Amino acid sequence: MTLRDLTLKSIEALPRAVSWSDGKLSLLDQRRLPVETQQIRCDQIEDVFDAIKTLAVRGAPAIGIAAAYGLLVGLPDPDNGDVSALRQLIQDRANYLKSARPTAVNLAWAVDRMLAALLAGEDDTIILKQCLLAEAMLIHREDTQACNRIGDYGLPLVQKCPRVLTHCNAGSLAVSELGTALAPIYKAYEAGVPVHVYIDETRPLLQGARLTAFELHATGVDCTLITDNMAAHIMSRGLVDMVLVGTDRVAANGDVANKIGTLNLAVLCHYFGIPFYVACPVSTIDLATASGSEIRIEQRSGSEVTQLGGQQLAPTGIGVLNPAFDITPARLVSGIITECGVIRAPFESSLAGVVTEKYASASAPG
Amino acid sequence: MTLRDLTLKSIEALPRAVSWSDGKLSLLDQRRLPVETQQIRCDQIEDVFDAIKTLAVRGAPAIGIAAAYGLLVGLPDPDNGDVSALRQLIQDRANYLKSARPTAVNLAWAVDRMLAALLAGEDDTIILKQCLLAEAMLIHREDTQACNRIGDYGLPLVQKCPRVLTHCNAGSLAVSELGTALAPIYKAYEAGVPVHVYIDETRPLLQGARLTAFELHATGVDCTLITDNMAAHIMSRGLVDMVLVGTDRVAANGDVANKIGTLNLAVLCHYFGIPFYVACPVSTIDLATASGSEIRIEQRSGSEVTQLGGQQLAPTGIGVLNPAFDITPARLVSGIITECGVIRAPFESSLAGVVTEKYASASAPG
Repeated sequence: MTLRDLTLKSIEALPRAVSWSDGKLSLLDQRRLPVETQQIRCDQIEDVFDAIKTLAVRGAPAIGIAAAYGLLVGLPDPDNGDVSALRQLIQDRANYLKSARPTAVNLAWAVDRMLAALLAGEDDTIILKQCLLAEAMLIHREDTQACNRIGDYGLPLVQKCPRVLTHCNAGSLAVSELGTALAPIYKAYEAGVPVHVYIDETRPLLQGARLTAFELHATGVDCTLITDNMAAHIMSRGLVDMVLVGTDRVAANGDVANKIGTLNLAVLCHYFGIPFYVACPVSTIDLATASGSEIRIEQRSGSEVTQLGGQQLAPTGIGVLNPAFDITPARLVSGIITECGVIRAPFESSLAGVVTEKYASASAPG
Repeated sequence: MTLRDLTLKSIEALPRAVSWSDGKLSLLDQRRLPVETQQIRCDQIEDVFDAIKTLAVRGAPAIGIAAAYGLLVGLPDPDNGDVSALRQLIQDRANYLKSARPTAVNLAWAVDRMLAALLAGEDDTIILKQCLLAEAMLIHREDTQACNRIGDYGLPLVQKCPRVLTHCNAGSLAVSELGTALAPIYKAYEAGVPVHVYIDETRPLLQGARLTAFELHATGVDCTLITDNMAAHIMSRGLVDMVLVGTDRVAANGDVANKIGTLNLAVLCHYFGIPFYVACPVSTIDLATASGSEIRIEQRSGSEVTQLGGQQLAPTGIGVLNPAFDITPARLVSGIITECGVIRAPFESSLAGVVTEKYASASAPG
């Protein structure tokens, strides 16, 4: 299927990063975006492993959901309904899938949640398999619901500030269904708000140009692609009402780690008097990290900057910096939109309150 | 010659954008950078026309210098030393070269200066041709000298602030010899100052990655390439002492038009308390433009953002903004480094003073 085949202009037209139907797992091959939307049909667990390892599926929550379903893909029935053989098989599969991307926190988290369900399950292979499928679906649904609520809480902000600039991809492709930063935008679009999204292309890996532009264009949301260095110009011309981004981790003091270039936008918002919002599930708030200064910034290969699809963009041998993330200080953050509401300064107390309440009332972090 | 052949690590190793030697004009083919440094040997005026039209030579002053010499390339001797035939031939050539890029102000300016010399010259074809060559060399030398003086006036700033971030290419390739924004850097390098240059790659056309990185790497100046959206991050880590950029036009009030992304840097400098300097010859100061709001921003093709070397980076049909320039308000500018000294606020009076003095003491704008 090519992009031209996507004629249904609505949120329903969003291709799903991960989908489970009639016992089959399909993953959208994000490496081929935006040129093609091709599904990877996973018939065997090796297909799931490969898709995770080669970044066909990306975005922390999406990887976790893919792995939860992945444990069940092509699962054979043990001879004579031997439940201990089934348990051993699932355990082996869990170790195998976790090894696809050892540093992906959500992958291990989702697989471990499936293992907890395995241990707690019935001693009947058929019922046990149904319990595991139910757990995978629950992980998926909890994520979808969190995104949905983030959309609801963010909707009034987008109604007030309908011209939104976003960075990287914190949408359907990274999470599930509505995404995080894009959820309020999709809700506003659905509600008939004249939302317009400026999309930072997000160098070096171009997640904005490749993924966010793909999502928004496919669903019919009015949008404009810009290079990252155009943000100040369009703000100076009064074209941007708010900036809305996702995040990889929020520290206890409200400092936000997100894709490189986010701090750039936050400083520009401060100068031009534009609100700067962050959207994430409460599970992204890490009270164990006191402030952003404790977060190690991953340095990635310089070739991501100097090469693109085999083309050499810069002299060979040139020195390159390629930090994957930056830290936006809490003082530049207008609010953090979560499934439990919009959290505002003073962040130290408000973040702690939301996290404590969420985990007091829930059986497991989601 | 490939980059690897450039073993001489000094300012002398800089490939010249435009060079004239033994009656021959050579132009560096900037379209092939940074992968190859290939000279275009211009034996006929058509070669010069093509090089200007196809952007093999770029940067306003470099185009003007190329055109001045270009009028003389392969110039035949008229029969019987007919000076009026020679004058007509030069006039025809002038019209022809001007048509290569009709909107390039420096092209028309340099050609017109040659025509003035033509009219003022002797009625002897051999002497007249020598006068014209002398005028072309003077245009070239004045530009070189202006760059040299910009380097001298900027040197103390780089000595104090040796870790410099620059944007786009305002170096040897765009101008002559030392360039404008890069001139103080080359001077500092030559003087043994431990200068380190952070180079914005400068999307969408990547002049930083392709040209500035090429120049600095070839001359051995310590430098690091970054994507444009990393500037805030490296400033927040205390790695940048000053920002130094070129400009296409300075308005009478000190507003600065320059490559898209310059305003981004100026706002970041304001937030992080980092000096923001602009370098240009006095001829770039346009007292006829009262403020930046009068400068029309050229909108370029969206395909420059969505495609790169035939690769599709974004969904086909996506809306794109692609302004070539932005306007940095004078209040964000620490100073403007010219061949007549560093101009500082209040810009309205200081700019007018420098321009008036320059043109009172010079025969022609340079």
